[in-house]
Amino acid sequence: MTAIPELTVRALAGLPMFATGMSIAQAICTALAAGGDALRDGDICVIAQKIVSKSEGRTVELADLMPGEEALDLAKRTGREAAMAQAILDESAEIMRPHPAAIIARHRTGHVLANAGIDASNVEGGDAGTVLLWPVDPDASARAIRADLRAASGAEVAVVIADSMGRAWRIGTVGTAIGCAGLTVLEDRRGRAVDLFGRTLQATVIAVADSVAAMAALAMGEGDEGAPVALVRGAGRWTSAEDGPGAASGLRPVEQDMFR
Amino acid sequence: MTAIPELTVRALAGLPMFATGMSIAQAICTALAAGGDALRDGDICVIAQKIVSKSEGRTVELADLMPGEEALDLAKRTGREAAMAQAILDESAEIMRPHPAAIIARHRTGHVLANAGIDASNVEGGDAGTVLLWPVDPDASARAIRADLRAASGAEVAVVIADSMGRAWRIGTVGTAIGCAGLTVLEDRRGRAVDLFGRTLQATVIAVADSVAAMAALAMGEGDEGAPVALVRGAGRWTSAEDGPGAASGLRPVEQDMFR
Repeated sequence: MTAIPELTVRALAGLPMFATGMSIAQAICTALAAGGDALRDGDICVIAQKIVSKSEGRTVELADLMPGEEALDLAKRTGREAAMAQAILDESAEIMRPHPAAIIARHRTGHVLANAGIDASNVEGGDAGTVLLWPVDPDASARAIRADLRAASGAEVAVVIADSMGRAWRIGTVGTAIGCAGLTVLEDRRGRAVDLFGRTLQATVIAVADSVAAMAALAMGEGDEGAPVALVRGAGRWTSAEDGPGAASGLRPVEQDMFR
Repeated sequence: MTAIPELTVRALAGLPMFATGMSIAQAICTALAAGGDALRDGDICVIAQKIVSKSEGRTVELADLMPGEEALDLAKRTGREAAMAQAILDESAEIMRPHPAAIIARHRTGHVLANAGIDASNVEGGDAGTVLLWPVDPDASARAIRADLRAASGAEVAVVIADSMGRAWRIGTVGTAIGCAGLTVLEDRRGRAVDLFGRTLQATVIAVADSVAAMAALAMGEGDEGAPVALVRGAGRWTSAEDGPGAASGLRPVEQDMFR
């Protein structure tokens, strides 16, 4: 048995409120230094989608949107504001289930989630009709933050951008990787690993990045207790010098979707 | 901000091979003692479904099953052995997608997963047609193991029984809670938490038990490297003296299933 070292995860204290143009990497290094700590090779920084979107200025004023016919229809079917329906359509490749409880959509990045990931909480002026979209390209955002962290710290770390996602058949959300750099997204053990009785494991692909995001989201919390960055240590077996293919590589291709 | 303490998770070394009738609780306490450690109040023991099933003697010889007409049809549509199709039917409330890649079924406990959770790996004699079913009642198993752990250690710990599950739109598996005792399954923050700008969070229910299972599965691994128990520490804010409603309370009711 190969011993896996203890994994630890903790939310970072002392991060600032983020606004457009602010460096997340710099804030992480500063917050760690204030606690007498610093990034080390093999660390994973899990970053909430919200602050990445904020630092990239991905806010939209609903009042600026002109709802089209499709948005008016979607709004009517789901009891939403027409402008919000338009925002969801603008961010979606496909509306899968237009339900009043949640509009399940395939986001233009390929991730399937409620309301195309659009959020009105924790946005300044949110009640007045400001919503926050996902980063334009979450994997590119992860790569950029990773490069910034390397430049600022000298350490070879991995970056995961995480959002809380619901699941088709289970209540509640779990942290999920929407952007990833420097971390194994999928560990494919098919035909490689043998089980305890020497047979080849038939179908085991472990969603490493999603599991890391779930762990981190638990430490990060939500709401006014929420810390937007968590540091995972002890997972260096899954980190790499290369950025890797990103969280998009963990998406089931549309043609294999049994639940479209 | 309420600080969440560091969460740690590590796989337990030195556990025996499990067979029918063996006490998992005793094995956990013995393995910890060998490392100079012991269970503490607030610890969470995450236990792989496989060893719970083995200790409960949930093996089935496929040769003993008599495939009926429905099983023969399912086998034909999916390219499976007829006896395996019968085993899946016997364990299922509903076959949702009979696909050659995976037969997606609603298990009789309500959990939706591939092949009704039936596994042929890591079972002695598995190549010869022995398969392993889920425990009869995974939440009851969790409660029983928890009571045994309390009796053996004196500590108030939580128990999660975890299996690796696929997801509808994402590749790879994540550890998921199929049985639970003494741990919050869902943390419902709707109408309670406020966001950083003082608005009430609209729809945030955190799947705590599933997130704990995902974290633990990462530490446990799979195949011949797999350790069947992981110990999670620092999550005492979610543990309780009561057993609680179990993992079944985290299932979306069938009538709310948009992807049936």
